Amino acid sequence: MNAFHRSAALLGLLLLSGTALAQAPAGPRPFDPLESDWKPIPDDEIMIIALTGNRTVVVRLAARFAPAHVANIRTLAHTHWWDGSSIYRVQENWVAQWGDPTNEKKLPDGITESPPAEFEIGAFTPAQTLAKHDAYSTQSGVTADGWPIAGNGSVGWLTHCYGTVGVARDALPHTGSGAALFSPIGQTARRLDRNYTVVGRIIEGMKYMSSLPRSDATMGVYADAKERTGIVSVRLASDLPAAERPHFQYRSTDNVRFAAQIAARENPPGMVAPGGVDVCDVQLTIRRAP
Amino acid sequence: MNAFHRSAALLGLLLLSGTALAQAPAGPRPFDPLESDWKPIPDDEIMIIALTGNRTVVVRLAARFAPAHVANIRTLAHTHWWDGSSIYRVQENWVAQWGDPTNEKKLPDGITESPPAEFEIGAFTPAQTLAKHDAYSTQSGVTADGWPIAGNGSVGWLTHCYGTVGVARDALPHTGSGAALFSPIGQTARRLDRNYTVVGRIIEGMKYMSSLPRSDATMGVYADAKERTGIVSVRLASDLPAAERPHFQYRSTDNVRFAAQIAARENPPGMVAPGGVDVCDVQLTIRRAP
Repeated sequence: MNAFHRSAALLGLLLLSGTALAQAPAGPRPFDPLESDWKPIPDDEIMIIALTGNRTVVVRLAARFAPAHVANIRTLAHTHWWDGSSIYRVQENWVAQWGDPTNEKKLPDGITESPPAEFEIGAFTPAQTLAKHDAYSTQSGVTADGWPIAGNGSVGWLTHCYGTVGVARDALPHTGSGAALFSPIGQTARRLDRNYTVVGRIIEGMKYMSSLPRSDATMGVYADAKERTGIVSVRLASDLPAAERPHFQYRSTDNVRFAAQIAARENPPGMVAPGGVDVCDVQLTIRRAP
Repeated sequence: MNAFHRSAALLGLLLLSGTALAQAPAGPRPFDPLESDWKPIPDDEIMIIALTGNRTVVVRLAARFAPAHVANIRTLAHTHWWDGSSIYRVQENWVAQWGDPTNEKKLPDGITESPPAEFEIGAFTPAQTLAKHDAYSTQSGVTADGWPIAGNGSVGWLTHCYGTVGVARDALPHTGSGAALFSPIGQTARRLDRNYTVVGRIIEGMKYMSSLPRSDATMGVYADAKERTGIVSVRLASDLPAAERPHFQYRSTDNVRFAAQIAARENPPGMVAPGGVDVCDVQLTIRRAP
């Protein structure tokens, strides 16, 4: 009897588990991380979005992969540029998008309005490579520091998974400054890979983004300003007083425990096994520092 | 300039389009359906779920692929068994699940409590096969009547995409009666393929399912009954008075227009093209009969 069945029996309900591994009884298992597998995320790579209604969404910034865009984003947060802006677009099975809904607010000094394209990240060099590829690449895997990546033999890129944060833009070759950001809230948006800049992923509070009311208006842009969700503030953790900063850690993947976790997803015990897992379905776990 | 850029310029906002094809200017294009491509869905394959707050979710039943489970579901709808039940589980990036939250309500006469497994659908025989496979199969495509399918060379199955409706269950080999149903509301739940019975897909009102508040309780089961979303009624369209029945049509896929639509997704103009599309990202369009 595997973890799935135990959980279900415990609850006495007809259930299926999305987190069976996490909920299995305690005890050392091949895929359990060691305490030393948890690594700190720098405070200036943590962006905290406070929505109205005491809802907080936390983004891990991909500073290493999209430095020009993340530099802009840090400036926007540092100057409080997003304070009072909103989530103004929520399109069913596509994206939530936020920033200045008028697109008229002046950007702060120091912003590069058209940064160089950062759609790709150079060679595909994962710490763990997945057994099977997908329809959007010929290679997929995860970096040692917990980012999902794909590649095609010559180049790699960060993938547009659920909860990824990307840079909205209008037309090529302008890549967007980073003032308008979006996150996929339905199935993956992998067809945006290599066409949009990935600048982070939501690591806490995704449930607030995913459960927003959908708009039926064109491209999901709320027709009525009252439908928007207000953004109270956006701050880098590093801009907060030291005592108020939340600290986050990622689970490193360059170890046998993480390889075992991938293997358990690819071939879960007690199930007809697919022998593979999608790059967006690998559990890249983040936690608050204990 | 492709449809994406036009749309964006039109709106004067930093946007990206999930439905660029649908929103391009009118005119005959290779991927536009002919009127004759639209085929009726039988009324007894349409299940209408009325939620509180005037929210309606419509499910197309996979009667051809899961006949035993769909027979149960028809009996449950016909006897009004679900009326007064609820959506009692909403787990972030996993599923919404509905039925009797107590799991104690007696099933109506005529229900097969443990139908035979209908996890697979026999041979993989799509009308259109996709260019690239994914991590969960070695073949993927769509049936002529608009269902997403995958296969492994010897057997095919319906895929657990966003918005698919599956049968919740507790433990193997019991497959669930169909009284408790679920739908993926985040990334795909493809790892359930061949382990759970797919009985349909949501064809209207998915936005009401996807935007429900997430529960932080174990496996996303609302800890407080007040959090549940009430189900007012569940009816087959065929059980409604003829004048009140909604009629739906699917876009058939066994034609060159649909092949062109897939090709446009696999290699969208003006973008770095992946050369593939995930089976869950093929646009299997449904419309109300004009």
